[in-house]
Amino acid sequence: MSLKDVQKQVDNWVKQYTMGYWEPLEMLARLVEETGELAREFNHRFGPKRKKDREDKKELADEMADIIFTVACMANSMDIDLNEAFEKTMDKYNSRDGDRWEKK
Amino acid sequence: MSLKDVQKQVDNWVKQYTMGYWEPLEMLARLVEETGELAREFNHRFGPKRKKDREDKKELADEMADIIFTVACMANSMDIDLNEAFEKTMDKYNSRDGDRWEKK
Amino acid sequence: MSLKDVQKQVDNWVKQYTMGYWEPLEMLARLVEETGELAREFNHRFGPKRKKDREDKKELADEMADIIFTVACMANSMDIDLNEAFEKTMDKYNSRDGDRWEKK
Amino acid sequence: MSLKDVQKQVDNWVKQYTMGYWEPLEMLARLVEETGELAREFNHRFGPKRKKDREDKKELADEMADIIFTVACMANSMDIDLNEAFEKTMDKYNSRDGDRWEKK
Repeated sequence: MSLKDVQKQVDNWVKQYTMGYWEPLEMLARLVEETGELAREFNHRFGPKRKKDREDKKELADEMADIIFTVACMANSMDIDLNEAFEKTMDKYNSRDGDRWEKK
Repeated sequence: MSLKDVQKQVDNWVKQYTMGYWEPLEMLARLVEETGELAREFNHRFGPKRKKDREDKKELADEMADIIFTVACMANSMDIDLNEAFEKTMDKYNSRDGDRWEKK
Repeated sequence: MSLKDVQKQVDNWVKQYTMGYWEPLEMLARLVEETGELAREFNHRFGPKRKKDREDKKELADEMADIIFTVACMANSMDIDLNEAFEKTMDKYNSRDGDRWEKK
Repeated sequence: MSLKDVQKQVDNWVKQYTMGYWEPLEMLARLVEETGELAREFNHRFGPKRKKDREDKKELADEMADIIFTVACMANSMDIDLNEAFEKTMDKYNSRDGDRWEKK
């Protein structure tokens, strides 16, 4: 599935409903919720609680996908092309951080 | 670019460096930084400050791409397939939320 | 209760346990969890879901107190005096932002 | 300075301006900004970058105070008493978590 498909699937899902896209700050609050849920999973697996098996990755994967879903909602409602944005970010990392870390 | 390509490009970038992937909680802290930068942009465009033109979407797009980059780092280091995870999330939304919102 | 009392009560609570203070990035992940829970409450009361009565403030108050608790844990473990830090912040706001907003 | 003084000082500062308190989701976005700045400082001191001296705590203290400031703004605008909320939270921790961790 391409980033364009991700955005398209999210758009199809949202467009089924009368509500449409949420307001920007509402979507942001949702992203913060999802990030908080990911943080809880991280502390359960890698932090002081360590109640969960590090091998069971289902909930981690779910929370990551929820973050991508929410970012795709934001991008759609603001007419942002995530594919183009991601390519620019890779260019930035490849140039800007070329000297920042020690290369192999 | 597919979600698999996103993960592959991030992996190629990280693998150049001796450092490799950060520890899970370090990647989480990075995600929180990036989410904070997105929040600042949202408040500048949609919040009380409104210092920036809502039409200039470059910085919003950059911050969204940085979030996707960081999530791809997490997924790679934990051997999570974002494509599979996203498809499951869409299934969940399509079934679970079928009744939650008013359909058109 | 003063900010010093807040820090002292948190310290007394932590010192009961063999575990002691968590590592910095573990406390940060906890703060992100708590901020996420506050975000959920905000969206329930002020966002698109609005499932909850805006007058029932108990959960909002709980989440805010959890944030203060976590910040006090961080401050204690890093030997930071929140009272002194807050006074400096008020000084900063009083000087720096003197011109930023329109005065009455 | 007591938690009541913290709330009062913040209220005095806000009341100087014509703008008054921000909308709830705007304050939340601000809290996310501040949490992101704290996360950056944590990664600089305790994470993979470690560019900064762990002994220099000024910026950490500043970010923690900014979080308390923002939480006090939220509480004031929603007529929440942080002192009362914090006391309830300490009661909750003292009872609920009495068995969760190993006591000394």
